[in-house]
Amino acid sequence: MARVINFNAGPAALPLGALERAQKELLDINGSGMSVMEHSHRGKVYEAVHNEAISLVKELLAVPDNYDILLLQGGASQQFAVVPMNLLPQGKSADYIQTGVWSQKAYKEAKVIGTARVAGNTEKDKKFSRIPKQSELELDPNAAYAHITSNNTIFGTQWHDFPDTGAVPLIADMSSDIAWRPIDVSKFGLIYAGAQKNLGPSGLVVVIVRKDLVEAGRKDIPVIFQYRTHVENNSLYNTPPTFSVYMLRNVLAEVKANGGLSAVEKLNREKAALLYNAIESRPDVFASPVEKESRSVMNVVFTLKSEELEAEFLAEAKKLKMEGLKGHRSVGGMRASIYNAVPREGVAALADLIKKFKA
Amino acid sequence: MARVINFNAGPAALPLGALERAQKELLDINGSGMSVMEHSHRGKVYEAVHNEAISLVKELLAVPDNYDILLLQGGASQQFAVVPMNLLPQGKSADYIQTGVWSQKAYKEAKVIGTARVAGNTEKDKKFSRIPKQSELELDPNAAYAHITSNNTIFGTQWHDFPDTGAVPLIADMSSDIAWRPIDVSKFGLIYAGAQKNLGPSGLVVVIVRKDLVEAGRKDIPVIFQYRTHVENNSLYNTPPTFSVYMLRNVLAEVKANGGLSAVEKLNREKAALLYNAIESRPDVFASPVEKESRSVMNVVFTLKSEELEAEFLAEAKKLKMEGLKGHRSVGGMRASIYNAVPREGVAALADLIKKFKA
Repeated sequence: MARVINFNAGPAALPLGALERAQKELLDINGSGMSVMEHSHRGKVYEAVHNEAISLVKELLAVPDNYDILLLQGGASQQFAVVPMNLLPQGKSADYIQTGVWSQKAYKEAKVIGTARVAGNTEKDKKFSRIPKQSELELDPNAAYAHITSNNTIFGTQWHDFPDTGAVPLIADMSSDIAWRPIDVSKFGLIYAGAQKNLGPSGLVVVIVRKDLVEAGRKDIPVIFQYRTHVENNSLYNTPPTFSVYMLRNVLAEVKANGGLSAVEKLNREKAALLYNAIESRPDVFASPVEKESRSVMNVVFTLKSEELEAEFLAEAKKLKMEGLKGHRSVGGMRASIYNAVPREGVAALADLIKKFKA
Repeated sequence: MARVINFNAGPAALPLGALERAQKELLDINGSGMSVMEHSHRGKVYEAVHNEAISLVKELLAVPDNYDILLLQGGASQQFAVVPMNLLPQGKSADYIQTGVWSQKAYKEAKVIGTARVAGNTEKDKKFSRIPKQSELELDPNAAYAHITSNNTIFGTQWHDFPDTGAVPLIADMSSDIAWRPIDVSKFGLIYAGAQKNLGPSGLVVVIVRKDLVEAGRKDIPVIFQYRTHVENNSLYNTPPTFSVYMLRNVLAEVKANGGLSAVEKLNREKAALLYNAIESRPDVFASPVEKESRSVMNVVFTLKSEELEAEFLAEAKKLKMEGLKGHRSVGGMRASIYNAVPREGVAALADLIKKFKA
């Protein structure tokens, strides 16, 4: 079967070039006579891949020198716990801004570790259909940190301007929108992102953390969970997920070859505009439940007038080899996840279907 | 370059058939038009892989029905902390038997969580060159659990008969020798194993845990670290490392096709005998630092009379396309890791080199 148009929310589409490179090298990387999976994580072949992956994160995201880049396991869900384990000491409180299911989960884990409070919440008024304005936030100037989820895969909202938290370190779960555009990393204390949307396969989480926060981190937690352990060992304290790191390298090498994050942003904005314009052009059938200024460039959530129409639409899409369009089971409707690796032509084909469906 | 003979200690050699299957399917698994890495972890294609991997663990290791099988992240090093977080309540103590570096690390993490004591240690008398006898152990009959490392990659020792801990649950880190032979799982409270030796690539840890221990586990720790979370969600609470699980499936499917663990054991014992016999046949140059009854079937550690001879030996091995024979940096010497996937012919070639070297 030919490759489909993959709108999965994550794990998600990967750049074809990154996969083809992996396929070619699967039994023998760099003439070493072994798969990258069979190499020691302390050998030269893997070490070069590992360091290239970290260098590409640093270069493409323009990570300043006072930040460390870590390649860890356990996904964003583990960071929900590991962030407060490191950075929320007794006697301090952390702020959580709730814009969806993932930020709620992060808040819940923080409360197991220490004191956490809600500094903003868009659930009650609009069912998470928007990002709060700065004026709505009730930030604690003494908080250990303030936490946001930069993009909400389920509700299709995204922070386009990040909140100003003053001297309080801003921590962002960027799992579903890291590397979709250039950002100013210096505005953040810590960024974490599960790889399985824009960066690679699942099983790897990238953490970008300011060095002073690493140093100030708690030491009364297990060694494996201390950020400093992984900083001191260049993310080689224990065996890293070597194939996932290899795929991160392959994906970022493609991004670099295609012009870096400015080029990626331009393409992503074009892709999102194609879909949102198509949805708005068909108010007879389609609607976006998300307020305009909060709409995600990564996950385009939309609804049809009835469940019957939705089923019919999915069937039409299936005929065009489109996969992964069903909305999250908790909210229903449709969702097109159009991460970096989803090609423009695939998105254009979906926009076309929306424009023509029942017209 | 042709594939080499891979004696790496881990990540290590994988079965060629498992890699070839992955290569063939890398852009399109089961005619789905996507890589397994691009499938949703909640979709049918991945779900089938996930459940087959778990079923194969259950079948090949003959896991009784009162045990759960979990596929987690973070490796054995993370389990060093997660085991006591779940199973070491305040007011209780856990026993640790120290037979090498990894059991020392496990003990160290446990002490961060609660009270842990050393119930056996072979460091002082013989530098970890043997496994302690039952009569040497000072087991606490009230311990929350007793912990062992079943095989010691660095020192080349292995528990051939497991200790009798009575009613105290025995917990084993089997990272480097799980699935090398059939075992009686019912003797253990919990088994954990990083996949990157006998089971697949790194980035995945298999946990086999008795249901009553899961139920009794602490609830005052983050949700992500509670075994019950992953039991209740069939290891799909958060995104699993899908490609690593897929490779686990491929590896275990090969094991099953080749006759299961009894056949694997026979082959492994033959391979180890080839090497130990060769070493013993050449006392003029080679020696084993490990007491005979403690010798590992997985990691054959040996020394030569001088560092010059070792360097010469490594150079000869390199000519024969043998990789990964250098001993761990902390102990020096040589180490041939001959896990399940290392073919008999490769081991025979090394035995041959030992017999002929400087003869």
